Amino acid sequence: MKPIVGRIEDVEEEVVSNAVRVYRRWLISKKHGSMNFAIRVFRIEKGGMSPPDSHDWEHGVVVLSGSGIVTIDDKEYEVRRGNFLFIPPKASHSFKQTGEDDLVFICVIPGSAVPPGK
Amino acid sequence: MKPIVGRIEDVEEEVVSNAVRVYRRWLISKKHGSMNFAIRVFRIEKGGMSPPDSHDWEHGVVVLSGSGIVTIDDKEYEVRRGNFLFIPPKASHSFKQTGEDDLVFICVIPGSAVPPGK
Repeated sequence: MKPIVGRIEDVEEEVVSNAVRVYRRWLISKKHGSMNFAIRVFRIEKGGMSPPDSHDWEHGVVVLSGSGIVTIDDKEYEVRRGNFLFIPPKASHSFKQTGEDDLVFICVIPGSAVPPGK
Repeated sequence: MKPIVGRIEDVEEEVVSNAVRVYRRWLISKKHGSMNFAIRVFRIEKGGMSPPDSHDWEHGVVVLSGSGIVTIDDKEYEVRRGNFLFIPPKASHSFKQTGEDDLVFICVIPGSAVPPGK
């Protein structure tokens, strides 16, 4: 297995379906040999949001820049650079960008939750 | 399992033993119910470094601020905000701060590598 050293901006960004102005980069994942966890970076542009979602796996989130509102099981949390979150398995969660700048955050998932090809 | 929303600066920082001016915060870990991965933040002050280490588990790293040199299996990589790294299991790795500012980075490990009590 090889080390990887890269820059976030050089990783291809994909559009997240079923969301508004949400984009995702897979930094470290199964295709790189990381079987136990995947690290993604999400970017939500002004006016963007992800609708409520829930699933059997957890999220670990660290906000890199911008600000937003994260709703977890109907409770709203204002977040900005320096905030981190743990979203437990099965908890409903949605993200909404606020302010002028893109909301950018790291989101970690277990390797078992990584879809084929990633 | 409860959601967690916190700020990095509010998490207690511990001194990393066997290193020079290296500090660690456990943001998300087993004690929070995260069994599949742990997310830590490391801070290396000016003049600080971690000596070469290797173990059976991998690291996923995202640099938040500052700059430094990461040595993986005798190859050196200059890193700064926006860089990410995958350090495979068993690879030797060390971190060295460079420049004026603290080198701050996220480091993800598998849940199986989390020590008791964390």
